[in-house]
Amino acid sequence: MNKTIAVLAGDGIGPEVMEQTIRVLNTIEKKFNHQFEVLQGLIGGSAYDKFGTHFPEATKFICQRSHAILFGSVGGPVNESHHEKWKNCEKNSILSLRKEFQFSSNIRPAKVYAELKDICPLKDSIIKNGIDIVIVRELLGDIYFGEHRTYIENQLRKAIDTAEYDEKQIEIVAHQSFKLALMRKNKVTSVDKANVLDTSKLWREVLTEIGKQYPTVTLEHMLVDNCAMQFFINPCQFDVIVTANLFGDILSDAAAAFPGSLGLMPSASFNEKGFGLFEPSGGSAPDIAGKNIANPIAQIMSLAMLLRQSFELIEEASCIENAVQKALQAGYRTCDISANKTETVTTEEMTNRIIEFI
Amino acid sequence: MNKTIAVLAGDGIGPEVMEQTIRVLNTIEKKFNHQFEVLQGLIGGSAYDKFGTHFPEATKFICQRSHAILFGSVGGPVNESHHEKWKNCEKNSILSLRKEFQFSSNIRPAKVYAELKDICPLKDSIIKNGIDIVIVRELLGDIYFGEHRTYIENQLRKAIDTAEYDEKQIEIVAHQSFKLALMRKNKVTSVDKANVLDTSKLWREVLTEIGKQYPTVTLEHMLVDNCAMQFFINPCQFDVIVTANLFGDILSDAAAAFPGSLGLMPSASFNEKGFGLFEPSGGSAPDIAGKNIANPIAQIMSLAMLLRQSFELIEEASCIENAVQKALQAGYRTCDISANKTETVTTEEMTNRIIEFI
Ligand SMILES: CC(C)[C@H](C(=O)O)[C@@H](O)C(=O)O
Ligand SMILES: CC(C)[C@H](C(=O)O)[C@@H](O)C(=O)O
Repeated sequence: MNKTIAVLAGDGIGPEVMEQTIRVLNTIEKKFNHQFEVLQGLIGGSAYDKFGTHFPEATKFICQRSHAILFGSVGGPVNESHHEKWKNCEKNSILSLRKEFQFSSNIRPAKVYAELKDICPLKDSIIKNGIDIVIVRELLGDIYFGEHRTYIENQLRKAIDTAEYDEKQIEIVAHQSFKLALMRKNKVTSVDKANVLDTSKLWREVLTEIGKQYPTVTLEHMLVDNCAMQFFINPCQFDVIVTANLFGDILSDAAAAFPGSLGLMPSASFNEKGFGLFEPSGGSAPDIAGKNIANPIAQIMSLAMLLRQSFELIEEASCIENAVQKALQAGYRTCDISANKTETVTTEEMTNRIIEFI
Repeated sequence: MNKTIAVLAGDGIGPEVMEQTIRVLNTIEKKFNHQFEVLQGLIGGSAYDKFGTHFPEATKFICQRSHAILFGSVGGPVNESHHEKWKNCEKNSILSLRKEFQFSSNIRPAKVYAELKDICPLKDSIIKNGIDIVIVRELLGDIYFGEHRTYIENQLRKAIDTAEYDEKQIEIVAHQSFKLALMRKNKVTSVDKANVLDTSKLWREVLTEIGKQYPTVTLEHMLVDNCAMQFFINPCQFDVIVTANLFGDILSDAAAAFPGSLGLMPSASFNEKGFGLFEPSGGSAPDIAGKNIANPIAQIMSLAMLLRQSFELIEEASCIENAVQKALQAGYRTCDISANKTETVTTEEMTNRIIEFI
């Protein structure tokens, strides 16, 4: 394995959970006799301090030279959001990365671990035998990269934003979601607002067309308002959900609540060539940063996802995932996933337990 | 009281829950010695059968002649959505009504009744002492009434939708939400996507400006993706939520799940002159229509909301609300709110119990 990983730890809890994740990576290297090249790059507020920009050329260069990106999190405290360092920090870092590498889809699992049913916000009668959803979100179209404009007309301030899709953009994520469904429960729920939006009508049309190429997969269409409600009343019905950029932003954050903590779930973004960026679903959590209490699991699971999906190291990835599962089964809890908030372990201790199980 | 109510029962369970609600209205008339004029109008699929349109002139005329509208629900079974009768039925009925009467805001409570904590999908540890939110949704701007277009460019199908806001539109709902907060817990959470959208930046600006006129109300801004997640992990933090049309569509349906059944919550839409339309939060539920099992409470509570807000009949409204509360406390349950699905009452029986408590 002659692979390079760009490691962008970012801000807040990013650096500390990343440090622990690198320890996991080193353990895997030893156990499986690999050697990865790790290139660390600055991004977000920490990049701003050194380069005066949230996404410096040096970081772009590191990513270009790598076979996959392991991303931490970016952004500062809410009450400092007017400081130049933090202003538009997330947007500048994340949207620039997506645009630069043309990451067209984001894949995010939302799963309720049996051991952690207690901390899922939903009642047991709703969780039933478990929730296991993957959300495929389109990342380069919709209202994100269309025209945005603020102007004055008849002495009134006005603003417009334009949502755009072409069939190609939709096809890419359509194929991806059907392929994912083939490896899972053969069901795709496409979420849109086709009763109002033209982009949604096109979305539904293209999904239906591409769906014909996957006759063993059941395709279902659902309106976004209904989907948001179904997340509460019957989340078990979903297998793969595919949706446009803005709806995906909202729904994937909602689904991030299912496991009970943002600190548990990884997420991956891919471009058409298969180049990927892997990151925790949660943010930089500045309020708990530097305290050695953040949950490292989402970052560690992001590494597992990277090894599986970018390097096809299935055994190595499973080894990490099993170790996480065992640490949870053995009862180790960081404070975000401890139901009674007592007897919790630190970021480092949690990682130690996971490493032992590797 | 010389007041006229336009009653548009619509499709599915609409007619049967409306019939029961009219019995409640008659009881209130007797008890409080009022006489209301009730004008019945057709809308949705039932209007299509007679007039070939979902929102006929005759119905418009009835609404224009009335002091308030009591609306049921519209729309047909999913598997018949290609029939002309049902095609675009909801959109044609609901968006036409909104446009015709310039309903600029929708007010929707989402409350967990203490007696019905069991059927709220969230765990008791999340519900804590109860959830009590009101969502104020802007109804005439955003991506609903802007330009929609589908075309071909470079042999690719493309579509665009345009979101638009001017400061006036935002001011109206801003004032409304601050006024509501003054009568409640003095907190407004304005939800937007200001890190990406220009319409959201303008939204945030205007909310902040108007907020200065209400110094006793705390104004908080929240990104929509975060809000969707907070609905699961900490819904108790919210008092009044104010948001744009599309986000409001999604969030108010999500919040409709809190009470445990769509059959419980009313909703109101107002124009600038204070003219209002009152309707259940749920849809026409064609699958259970005609079986005398639908929950009439949302429709009955919509009537209570109408009496209070359009006719200022505070005592009459409270009388209905208390009767509903008592019927629930006495243990009467339609099947949608019965935790164990046994010993349920019919639509009519539930109404009988409510009428007895009046
Ligand atoms: C920071 C922001 C622009 C971004 C988005 O809306 O896509 C974030 O919320 C996300 O989901 O990665
Ligand atoms: C039917 C549809 C156009 C409508 C909307 O999106 O506003 C509905 O979902 C609602 O919330 O009243």
